[in-house]
Amino acid sequence: MKRNIVVSWLDRVPVAMGEVELVERKGIGHPDSLADGLAEAFSRSLCQLYVDEVGEVLHHNVDQSEVSGGQSEAVFGGGKVLEPPYILLLGRAVDEAITPDRRVRFPVRDLAVRTARSYLWEHFHDPSLVSETGFSVAEDVIVDAKVGKGSQDLIQNFRRTAQRCPTDHRTCRPANDTSFGVGFAPLTETEQLVYEMERFINGDVKTKHGLTATGCDVKVMASRRGKKIDLTIACAMISSRIASAAEYRNVVAQLHDLCQEKAAELTDSEIGIVINHADNTASEDPSDYYLTITGLSLENGDDGSVGRGNRVNGLITPFRPMSMEAAAGKNPVTHVGKLYNVLANQIATQIADEAGSEVFEVQVRLLSQIGSPIDLPALASVELCTRDEAAFRRWQPRAKEIADGFLEGIESLTDQIVKGRVGVF
Amino acid sequence: MKRNIVVSWLDRVPVAMGEVELVERKGIGHPDSLADGLAEAFSRSLCQLYVDEVGEVLHHNVDQSEVSGGQSEAVFGGGKVLEPPYILLLGRAVDEAITPDRRVRFPVRDLAVRTARSYLWEHFHDPSLVSETGFSVAEDVIVDAKVGKGSQDLIQNFRRTAQRCPTDHRTCRPANDTSFGVGFAPLTETEQLVYEMERFINGDVKTKHGLTATGCDVKVMASRRGKKIDLTIACAMISSRIASAAEYRNVVAQLHDLCQEKAAELTDSEIGIVINHADNTASEDPSDYYLTITGLSLENGDDGSVGRGNRVNGLITPFRPMSMEAAAGKNPVTHVGKLYNVLANQIATQIADEAGSEVFEVQVRLLSQIGSPIDLPALASVELCTRDEAAFRRWQPRAKEIADGFLEGIESLTDQIVKGRVGVF
Amino acid sequence: MKRNIVVSWLDRVPVAMGEVELVERKGIGHPDSLADGLAEAFSRSLCQLYVDEVGEVLHHNVDQSEVSGGQSEAVFGGGKVLEPPYILLLGRAVDEAITPDRRVRFPVRDLAVRTARSYLWEHFHDPSLVSETGFSVAEDVIVDAKVGKGSQDLIQNFRRTAQRCPTDHRTCRPANDTSFGVGFAPLTETEQLVYEMERFINGDVKTKHGLTATGCDVKVMASRRGKKIDLTIACAMISSRIASAAEYRNVVAQLHDLCQEKAAELTDSEIGIVINHADNTASEDPSDYYLTITGLSLENGDDGSVGRGNRVNGLITPFRPMSMEAAAGKNPVTHVGKLYNVLANQIATQIADEAGSEVFEVQVRLLSQIGSPIDLPALASVELCTRDEAAFRRWQPRAKEIADGFLEGIESLTDQIVKGRVGVF
Amino acid sequence: MKRNIVVSWLDRVPVAMGEVELVERKGIGHPDSLADGLAEAFSRSLCQLYVDEVGEVLHHNVDQSEVSGGQSEAVFGGGKVLEPPYILLLGRAVDEAITPDRRVRFPVRDLAVRTARSYLWEHFHDPSLVSETGFSVAEDVIVDAKVGKGSQDLIQNFRRTAQRCPTDHRTCRPANDTSFGVGFAPLTETEQLVYEMERFINGDVKTKHGLTATGCDVKVMASRRGKKIDLTIACAMISSRIASAAEYRNVVAQLHDLCQEKAAELTDSEIGIVINHADNTASEDPSDYYLTITGLSLENGDDGSVGRGNRVNGLITPFRPMSMEAAAGKNPVTHVGKLYNVLANQIATQIADEAGSEVFEVQVRLLSQIGSPIDLPALASVELCTRDEAAFRRWQPRAKEIADGFLEGIESLTDQIVKGRVGVF
Repeated sequence: MKRNIVVSWLDRVPVAMGEVELVERKGIGHPDSLADGLAEAFSRSLCQLYVDEVGEVLHHNVDQSEVSGGQSEAVFGGGKVLEPPYILLLGRAVDEAITPDRRVRFPVRDLAVRTARSYLWEHFHDPSLVSETGFSVAEDVIVDAKVGKGSQDLIQNFRRTAQRCPTDHRTCRPANDTSFGVGFAPLTETEQLVYEMERFINGDVKTKHGLTATGCDVKVMASRRGKKIDLTIACAMISSRIASAAEYRNVVAQLHDLCQEKAAELTDSEIGIVINHADNTASEDPSDYYLTITGLSLENGDDGSVGRGNRVNGLITPFRPMSMEAAAGKNPVTHVGKLYNVLANQIATQIADEAGSEVFEVQVRLLSQIGSPIDLPALASVELCTRDEAAFRRWQPRAKEIADGFLEGIESLTDQIVKGRVGVF
Repeated sequence: MKRNIVVSWLDRVPVAMGEVELVERKGIGHPDSLADGLAEAFSRSLCQLYVDEVGEVLHHNVDQSEVSGGQSEAVFGGGKVLEPPYILLLGRAVDEAITPDRRVRFPVRDLAVRTARSYLWEHFHDPSLVSETGFSVAEDVIVDAKVGKGSQDLIQNFRRTAQRCPTDHRTCRPANDTSFGVGFAPLTETEQLVYEMERFINGDVKTKHGLTATGCDVKVMASRRGKKIDLTIACAMISSRIASAAEYRNVVAQLHDLCQEKAAELTDSEIGIVINHADNTASEDPSDYYLTITGLSLENGDDGSVGRGNRVNGLITPFRPMSMEAAAGKNPVTHVGKLYNVLANQIATQIADEAGSEVFEVQVRLLSQIGSPIDLPALASVELCTRDEAAFRRWQPRAKEIADGFLEGIESLTDQIVKGRVGVF
Repeated sequence: MKRNIVVSWLDRVPVAMGEVELVERKGIGHPDSLADGLAEAFSRSLCQLYVDEVGEVLHHNVDQSEVSGGQSEAVFGGGKVLEPPYILLLGRAVDEAITPDRRVRFPVRDLAVRTARSYLWEHFHDPSLVSETGFSVAEDVIVDAKVGKGSQDLIQNFRRTAQRCPTDHRTCRPANDTSFGVGFAPLTETEQLVYEMERFINGDVKTKHGLTATGCDVKVMASRRGKKIDLTIACAMISSRIASAAEYRNVVAQLHDLCQEKAAELTDSEIGIVINHADNTASEDPSDYYLTITGLSLENGDDGSVGRGNRVNGLITPFRPMSMEAAAGKNPVTHVGKLYNVLANQIATQIADEAGSEVFEVQVRLLSQIGSPIDLPALASVELCTRDEAAFRRWQPRAKEIADGFLEGIESLTDQIVKGRVGVF
Repeated sequence: MKRNIVVSWLDRVPVAMGEVELVERKGIGHPDSLADGLAEAFSRSLCQLYVDEVGEVLHHNVDQSEVSGGQSEAVFGGGKVLEPPYILLLGRAVDEAITPDRRVRFPVRDLAVRTARSYLWEHFHDPSLVSETGFSVAEDVIVDAKVGKGSQDLIQNFRRTAQRCPTDHRTCRPANDTSFGVGFAPLTETEQLVYEMERFINGDVKTKHGLTATGCDVKVMASRRGKKIDLTIACAMISSRIASAAEYRNVVAQLHDLCQEKAAELTDSEIGIVINHADNTASEDPSDYYLTITGLSLENGDDGSVGRGNRVNGLITPFRPMSMEAAAGKNPVTHVGKLYNVLANQIATQIADEAGSEVFEVQVRLLSQIGSPIDLPALASVELCTRDEAAFRRWQPRAKEIADGFLEGIESLTDQIVKGRVGVF
């Protein structure tokens, strides 16, 4: 069957060359990213469990986790968590399967809570911080789960596969929703800078440069005007490692210098950096600074939800097309809100990689229709922003071919996601 | 102080004239819209309470409501709700104020629950449906609230206003976050069509055409290719008002005809309409149809969250710039994630209205910096897509003037939002 | 089969003639009684539902309701509920039955919440109070339910009935636990007085004497020494109906007089009455009085649990044998913690009624053994405290006969309980 | 001030010599005992925290913990926990203190959750069981806490101390409730047997006799008739350590023999023992046995609440006077529901110890009046069941003296309880 793929010419100035650009990334410790991370980890655990037990991924949709902030009292040199953050994993998942020879029950709620703790442990456990503060993010955060059995219709839909295409050898899992996915490539210099800067602060800054007073809750916002890029960085500082306001200001200054150096490596553009702009640097009062016990703002009131942060490419880009879909936590078998966002990015990236400098921008949008096979989108739109119309004509057929190829192979995407090889936030 | 407003030329084919367009709207009864509606109603109630008690809106941020779907068993002619949906209102709000002469305590949690019930009552209470089914959405849904006292820092920030600009007569509330808002105008024909179609199904279809078997949970998705617009509509049907699969198919057919007529009124484009595409119309089994007791999918497993649905203009538009911010539930005093999204749309609309056919498209993005006055964004970007460069030059100064004027008057926006005159989803 | 019934002589001074006696009753509005009432109402609704749908009462055990107090601020003439009380119905109940011809799903959680609201409505709804205060106990209290499917073993046990006594025509439902029930009769004068006094304050005091400023949360404690009975009464007063501390003291004085008169009707003993002993009557501060918005202490921090208040005869009697079992909420089919407590009281009452003045006291204890038929207790102990040993010998055989008769007819008890003809707290 | 102490003669056959006796003990792993244990541990942690921070125990009442059972699937040789048990700590506690020089905030909710985990760890952590089953009771059970700030009135009452007795040098903390405590001594042989038997099964049976397939959830029920004592024991078995039904039956047989031997050590009475009476020993199906993954019935549906199990002496004794008060979790400063029950037992024990064989039984009941000093009960009743009236007369004055002494020194009881030297369940 022929796929409905439209490749059109995007006749405009590329975003990278426009006058203005805005780009944001919420780091791994931001409450919204944490909610995404927990939801995705839970989904992957479920997939693994289902595959181990019955040989295939069963229906689930656990894309509703909530991170509800606690209460803390951070002071220079220490402080305490008064009320631990509360994480609630929500969604639905099949908790029982009837196979020809047996009835399998799945420990869904147990898995939810364990997976969450493992995730917290893997990403935020810092043994020395635990001994300094007496508070362990991995152990002392409250984790609960309410997981339903999923909507009757969706389950039905999920199962209907085999019935509808009995004689057809190609993929035919039906889409579980009428929804779309969006992707683009390549990243602009500003986008790369934002992405890399967060990775740098949550990586080398701590491990290589030893600035361990910086927490994991990092947000990087860039606004570019012409050739000048202004970075506004929010980074939760760790109170037990900062003895005074003066030391805090010193840590911020060090972080500033490191980021400035890193930016100079990454770009030739002029870079302005502001860190923790809400601080009142004239004050000695700890509450006038971005000070935390754990390095995470969720300890003191900041909430987070799945799907409210980064898109599947790790960025929030209001000068780029975006989808509202939360990819994290959705099942990677029939949920187009997840599959199509990832696939749209893969298609765009592949085209951009092959075309190199001839294609400035690729934008891909995939629209599903509930009940139709996921490899046959209602519409696949590919837009190429090229040097000139000739370049568009040259790349148009290849772009279509690439889109077609990725759609043809959409089944393999499930496996990549289950194995954690595809980022979704 | 001069505002940092950049008006630039958007030299491209307008979206309306592009080859492809995708537009979505989640109606008032969609779980995500319900979460938005509840969060916003709660915020407005809080504002009113604060103003009544202490004369000003105090800090709150209640943008984390969760709608956790129930379990139901719908059959033709009836059925039952097995497990009621569960609504959890989350966030933070000041619950105590110390004024010079007294200490005021605010009934925040009580207000949360009451406001939610009022909202359900106002939008979904159908007395005859209650008597048909025995289930009242307004009364029988479980509503709970967990509302913290807000993060220390944010509260601090909120209060810092007066201290920083004591001698300055202009507005100086500081932004509570580094964030941005996005808006555009005018709507394309497809966008208008999607918006109107949902309003039609949740309005005249029921009241004027008497098709009361259609529920309030409606989603409209449009994909336009060239001049052809395909509408995929999902509309939960009400089981007590549909006696059989045949009658169901008949209701869908009637709805189809009404929508087709309505579309013809709204546009000259060729329109294709598909309703409830996942139905298996060959079946007599109620579970093969989009059948509900209440007309709301949340009764059977569909969850919803704030900020995952429509943007402040009521649409999801992947061919347009969008913000990830959840506007609903945020306080309308310092929360730029709300104020800037609304304002960006107002600025864009005003420019588009004045410029008429000379400006095809206006895109506005406003970037805040935490701690800086909200009327002085770090950057205000206005892009004009015009017939030609001359038109851009003509409208550039006026666009800047309009943006400046709206920013100057941003204080009045709070009042409009509190009074419910501004939609946010 | 012969039942293991032991009738023995209780050779002692009866409680009524002892030097000292302590008796307590928690009224219908006390948080513990409310928890009992909600649990029992829920169980009865379940029974009715099961009988209607499948013709028999299925397994459930919903004896774990929690009443978690709210926060309020009562002042003379008014006040407000800041945080509504929170009721959580807990337990387990079969939510699905497979019958030969179909699969029935039971709306357990929906039923829980509805039944709770109905109960609140029936017992505490006062329309004029709602209009005075703006707070409705029936509507504004938060009600949630977490109901599991019950332990595997117990369910098994429940079903095993038919298998074990296939050829036996008599009742053979097996006990679900090794547990005991306790009962005694007749009530002493002090016991009757305490019981009647609470009923009076929650009855005639309000309806006949018009003292509507008295709330439903009433606790009556009696200590008798010799012929003198001291009653300590706690009665939550309703703030909107009391304009000042003086008026409060006046209401208490009126209540005192009414209770004194009532006591004189009920007994010739000397009666001392103290009401709301913690009040600081020298103060004008409302927080120095037992003042509430709703007439229920649960509005401001008082919690309640099933099984912590009155025994099945409506009293707490430390000079009498008691069982620790919570009767409320337990299923009335196999749960001996409920059935045996009720039955023990019925047996004792019947013996006492027949014997009249010849038997001073009857004490009955029934011990079950998990898995054995409920009509065949491991041990039925009946103790008779009689004028003399001759009286004991006269009544011993009849007492045994009565006990045997009640055990023989234990099946009919289920029906009485389901119909609400048997009080359990 | 003279205390109102009444010592009266209990002219009856002592319980130990009566025809029938019933005694029960719920072991440490029983859900009700677990709820008690968690509540008491939480209270003790709070006391320690308050003392450390402000030098005195502040108001709290955390006697409402709930243990909500999970779901498991135990099979011989293994199985899995499907849904982890859920523990909810409820109650109220002061979370902020204003001292002359500072404002202290207490991490109440954090403390609740940590204390619960510590308690689970201390009493139920079995490393080898965790490695066998993959499930850790200490880590994988869900623990949450909802702790309010306590009722306004009670807090007031708590603070009022100093004001009321400014010139009086003696103890004068006011009672927080009108309530009573009950105690008796000495224990009968049956009572001792029940107590020791549970301690044996949860002690030597595992550590000395190596019967590690027996779990910690143990309940012992005794019914004595004449000289014959029947023990009905329920003991959850651990599935990973029992390979088959035959092995299960063998473990039960071993346990039976050990208990029989132990009983012979403890008593000369004839002893009958039945273990896990609901088992269907003809079956090979694991669901026909009392089989668990963790040795705790709460893993599969058995719920527990504070105050529903053992009285402060560790027993449930329907042939003895009992109080309905939950002692566990109540504050040990003003809460008579706790203090008076413990004290009544201490008084009874002291009298019984001194009097030896001259006094068969001592029964003590203490009645408080809300607002009155805790060392001045409204009534203290001591009953002595003696060989003859002469013995009563001899011991009456000393009994009064002892009661008076314990009441005089009631302040020291608080300290004993905080240090964990007094059992309360």
